Amino acid sequence: MTEQQETPPTGVSKALQKDIPQATVARLATYLRVLAVLADEAVAIVSSEELAVAAGVGSAKLRKDLSFLGPNGVRGVGYDVIKLRDRIEDVLGLSEGHRVVLVGAGHLGRALVGYGGFRRRGFAMVGLFDNDPAVIGTSVTGLIVRDVAELTDAVAALEPTIAVITVPDAAAQGVCDLLVAAGLQCVLSFSALALEAPATVEVRRVDLAVEMQLLSFERARNAESAAEEAMSAAAGALLPRVSMTTSKGAVVQP
Amino acid sequence: MTEQQETPPTGVSKALQKDIPQATVARLATYLRVLAVLADEAVAIVSSEELAVAAGVGSAKLRKDLSFLGPNGVRGVGYDVIKLRDRIEDVLGLSEGHRVVLVGAGHLGRALVGYGGFRRRGFAMVGLFDNDPAVIGTSVTGLIVRDVAELTDAVAALEPTIAVITVPDAAAQGVCDLLVAAGLQCVLSFSALALEAPATVEVRRVDLAVEMQLLSFERARNAESAAEEAMSAAAGALLPRVSMTTSKGAVVQP
Repeated sequence: MTEQQETPPTGVSKALQKDIPQATVARLATYLRVLAVLADEAVAIVSSEELAVAAGVGSAKLRKDLSFLGPNGVRGVGYDVIKLRDRIEDVLGLSEGHRVVLVGAGHLGRALVGYGGFRRRGFAMVGLFDNDPAVIGTSVTGLIVRDVAELTDAVAALEPTIAVITVPDAAAQGVCDLLVAAGLQCVLSFSALALEAPATVEVRRVDLAVEMQLLSFERARNAESAAEEAMSAAAGALLPRVSMTTSKGAVVQP
Repeated sequence: MTEQQETPPTGVSKALQKDIPQATVARLATYLRVLAVLADEAVAIVSSEELAVAAGVGSAKLRKDLSFLGPNGVRGVGYDVIKLRDRIEDVLGLSEGHRVVLVGAGHLGRALVGYGGFRRRGFAMVGLFDNDPAVIGTSVTGLIVRDVAELTDAVAALEPTIAVITVPDAAAQGVCDLLVAAGLQCVLSFSALALEAPATVEVRRVDLAVEMQLLSFERARNAESAAEEAMSAAAGALLPRVSMTTSKGAVVQP
């Protein structure tokens, strides 16, 4: 970060990529969503304050996050919406889009296939698989459910970059093994179980109960703070409360 | 953290609650899941190394995380599984369980109602609502879908502590307003839109596309690192790589 930056923008972001904290990456995804809306509305320039408010973060944090992308923005003017969007897409590895196959056409799988947010953000669903004869051959949002027995051949033909697993827990590891054997290197799993895969394969697990638990924690913390405040107020003791954070200051996405 | 700790365990955790980083809270939820499995298997004591491996984090990070809970564990022995589980549940505000209502009985809503992970972790689904006459009155995993017009009365009767919104984006703010008016203070939204609510209400948004983007980023980062390594190896330059992190070191849950 202290070296002179002479490489072109994409080179800079690639070089800095491995130093970006996970929390910043999650916020970059949020900024990207806001920028996409602004681009749709033909907004050319956005100030850091406007972008921060729309993303629900403080503007100091936003500027710090964007500093990981290398030089961008003009002091007193703002950020070029299209350039900043493209820069973030580049850093997140989204520039070329992703082709996604999904295994498990139950309620969750169908919900994900029908989720407009994926296509809007460059994730194209190209294949949908299940092992239930009653489901194979049916259509989900225009995509025909195929037999999971065809998965290996289909992966070779479809060349997906990401696979999503939404099968019951008992079947998840077997599906993961199939996908890895077929050459997939990026897996998003909704199984409650930890899946084993070679170190060269990225497996990211989404645990929906964790989201509930985080919500529960925020609630418990703020209820406690409110109770403390009430007690402090009652005692007439108005001491400074340095470490307290509000729910509104917390970043919504993990 | 440097003060003498004379308050009882639950008091300690409450007092420290507001200082716990978000990333630690997410990992506490992961430890809790592992501890629940161990408790089911009647395991009484677990070492920090065992717990760290099962949770997929480094043991130093685990010990640091658990230090936020106040004193626990015995050096050279390990952690009492039941005590640690109860302590984490207390900190996460889960001790008394949660009663959950869900609005929007589409694929995602049905997937969530049927998700075993919620009940196992103390989240009981007590009400399910929709506005589609074709869906109202049908049963989802034993729960009858009710008319959203009954929501206000139902909330008064069911006394839920958490509401989940899985309706189409266009309807999400209206449902959120209804829930807030009915007295809900904890909302988990799967809408792509940011929802407005009073500062006293916790709204947590789950954006499934962000999970895909984080996966894409990890992939791009590691592909870049692999390419750099190949270049370094080719040039015979084996410099230390301090800042590199591996995919396996990253915490899976947000």
